[in-house]
Amino acid sequence: IVMVPVENVFAEKGPYKHFMAKETHEQPIVLADAFARYLAPHRSEVHLPEEVDFAGCERIVMVACGTAHYACHVAKYWFESLAGIPVEIDVASEFRYREPPVGPGTLGIFVSQSGETADTLAALRYLKGRGGRSLAVVNVETSTIARESDVALPILAGPEIGVASTKAFTCQLALLACLAILAARQRGAIDGAGEAGRVEELRALPGLMATALTLEPAIAEIARDVSHARDVLFLGRGPMYPLALEGALKLKEISYIHAEGYASGELKHGPIALVDEAVPVIVLAPSDALFDKTVSNMQEVLARGGRALLVSDAAGIEAAGAGAWRTLAMPRAAPLVAPILYAVPAQLLAYHAAVFKGTDVDQPRNLAKSVTVE
Amino acid sequence: IVMVPVENVFAEKGPYKHFMAKETHEQPIVLADAFARYLAPHRSEVHLPEEVDFAGCERIVMVACGTAHYACHVAKYWFESLAGIPVEIDVASEFRYREPPVGPGTLGIFVSQSGETADTLAALRYLKGRGGRSLAVVNVETSTIARESDVALPILAGPEIGVASTKAFTCQLALLACLAILAARQRGAIDGAGEAGRVEELRALPGLMATALTLEPAIAEIARDVSHARDVLFLGRGPMYPLALEGALKLKEISYIHAEGYASGELKHGPIALVDEAVPVIVLAPSDALFDKTVSNMQEVLARGGRALLVSDAAGIEAAGAGAWRTLAMPRAAPLVAPILYAVPAQLLAYHAAVFKGTDVDQPRNLAKSVTVE
Repeated sequence: IVMVPVENVFAEKGPYKHFMAKETHEQPIVLADAFARYLAPHRSEVHLPEEVDFAGCERIVMVACGTAHYACHVAKYWFESLAGIPVEIDVASEFRYREPPVGPGTLGIFVSQSGETADTLAALRYLKGRGGRSLAVVNVETSTIARESDVALPILAGPEIGVASTKAFTCQLALLACLAILAARQRGAIDGAGEAGRVEELRALPGLMATALTLEPAIAEIARDVSHARDVLFLGRGPMYPLALEGALKLKEISYIHAEGYASGELKHGPIALVDEAVPVIVLAPSDALFDKTVSNMQEVLARGGRALLVSDAAGIEAAGAGAWRTLAMPRAAPLVAPILYAVPAQLLAYHAAVFKGTDVDQPRNLAKSVTVE
Repeated sequence: IVMVPVENVFAEKGPYKHFMAKETHEQPIVLADAFARYLAPHRSEVHLPEEVDFAGCERIVMVACGTAHYACHVAKYWFESLAGIPVEIDVASEFRYREPPVGPGTLGIFVSQSGETADTLAALRYLKGRGGRSLAVVNVETSTIARESDVALPILAGPEIGVASTKAFTCQLALLACLAILAARQRGAIDGAGEAGRVEELRALPGLMATALTLEPAIAEIARDVSHARDVLFLGRGPMYPLALEGALKLKEISYIHAEGYASGELKHGPIALVDEAVPVIVLAPSDALFDKTVSNMQEVLARGGRALLVSDAAGIEAAGAGAWRTLAMPRAAPLVAPILYAVPAQLLAYHAAVFKGTDVDQPRNLAKSVTVE
């Protein structure tokens, strides 16, 4: 087990009304701290403990619950496209009971903020019992999941108090991105220049996050309208699909608005039947290779009288913003880091919708911070 | 390509008000027809073309859209637990663009009612281009997906006119169950007695479906109350989790109620925040090995003032029905066939909710039967 002390401990709300707001705004700092640990100081390389070994692994299974599961879902795209390793993702409560095939060539990655999530721990024990190797990605380094894994890496987010996970999610993603780059290097799927390029994209992320946070007034204004909605759809493609799921979960958790995330391409296979002027559709579409496909799904929403919010960069909004109900211009970001960056509007939208509704942001009804029972 | 003519062609609504009702009620007949083809006549064995070969496959990827994707999700549990083959499922619009690793040891199974679904066809072509082997599970045998696959098997559901898929879903499941049993035999994971047991469970299914259809008046009464809800949650564990997703999709498609399916174990990781007396929670829980776990999630819903409908068998309702808002007693079914059987209440609930709301059941707004464009 690799243990690294947490240096960034924040325990008070400071100028913020809620821990969630404070933790959302801490993201540039904690991400910079995480990169100080996991990127090499004077070289454009990732820097991870030697025990982390992807060379001999046939496939990866990533197991988690809730928001951490969506972090795994994003990382699946990275591990597959960067390193060419097949990745299966599953929610822990399903994985542990469905007798999944696991062997010595299987690497299990278990992601949990608290490191005590009951179903995730049980899934870890199942995998170990079948001879799989295990890697824990946790915020609490002294946790049971960290102690029982072959290797444990801390995400270095500092204490997260708000029940709705924010900085833990983006720090999980940051560490998983570093791991995917390492996997690509170890398997010869990326050369030095390729690794350097990806690492520099990661280094730019804290600054981009800070820029995205300055959009808070615009996001709050949109959130005022969204707070009146009873139902909301989030759409995304590729690694933006799990972001759509995460955006919906955030809104659901703290504002009690029934939001649901969908892969954009699935819209026509059912959910578009829900679309009318009362259901805002939030489209997460940075201007990348999938942009035109996602925008065509947005056009279907608009053609059916729906209200679409296009979250993109300036180029994307220039190209496709006409006709949208609202637009939000994010900083332009490399495809690798865009899913991390786009967590910010998802978090702030949910936060301000909840504030407008007057719900208890840090302690939403029915929810606990760590789910340590089944 | 294996082509088999469809013998069961139904083109009129007969005594039914909608094609969806007719197609729902045809399920015992078309399933019996499918089993007459895919189970050996006088032996308790599955009976499939020799070209279908799971012996040399390292992993299976199953790709589809919408309801067919949920059929793949159920089949994943079967292939893994019966045959021990790792299975990855994905929606076609994601699979085709995310550069998934595919090699000669990968068997792709592509499921499409029409056999013309644009994204699924593109995913098939991607896999073939990477050297994977392909198996099509389609209703239309002359379709492009059938013609371009190494092997194609018809589900024998007969023409499906209603936009919301019913009999095609259960016929997809029936054929996929036969394939999972074959895979288990070919890989030595099941002996003759085991195969005979599973085959006899399948043979019992048409009769169980007919019995479940007699519950229609009770389901219609529940649907009257559900039709007033704006939001609904469906919960299930194991192979009942995709059924929860399918139940939600059906309701969404034809009644425009915002229903969402969740793995029961994920309830505490977010969606339980939505639960109040206005949101019916439909719990799909046959009395099996996961029953107690699912019921404990239902109890959490009840403890928070929620209204839960327990869909189970008599033993399950006897054990856990007290306190539930409503119960529905299904015929007792073997774990293999329960996910197919429980499609019936999901279909009838959506159908009658839509009828009460007065929506256009067979032609819901914004939807087309076959999605032949991206």
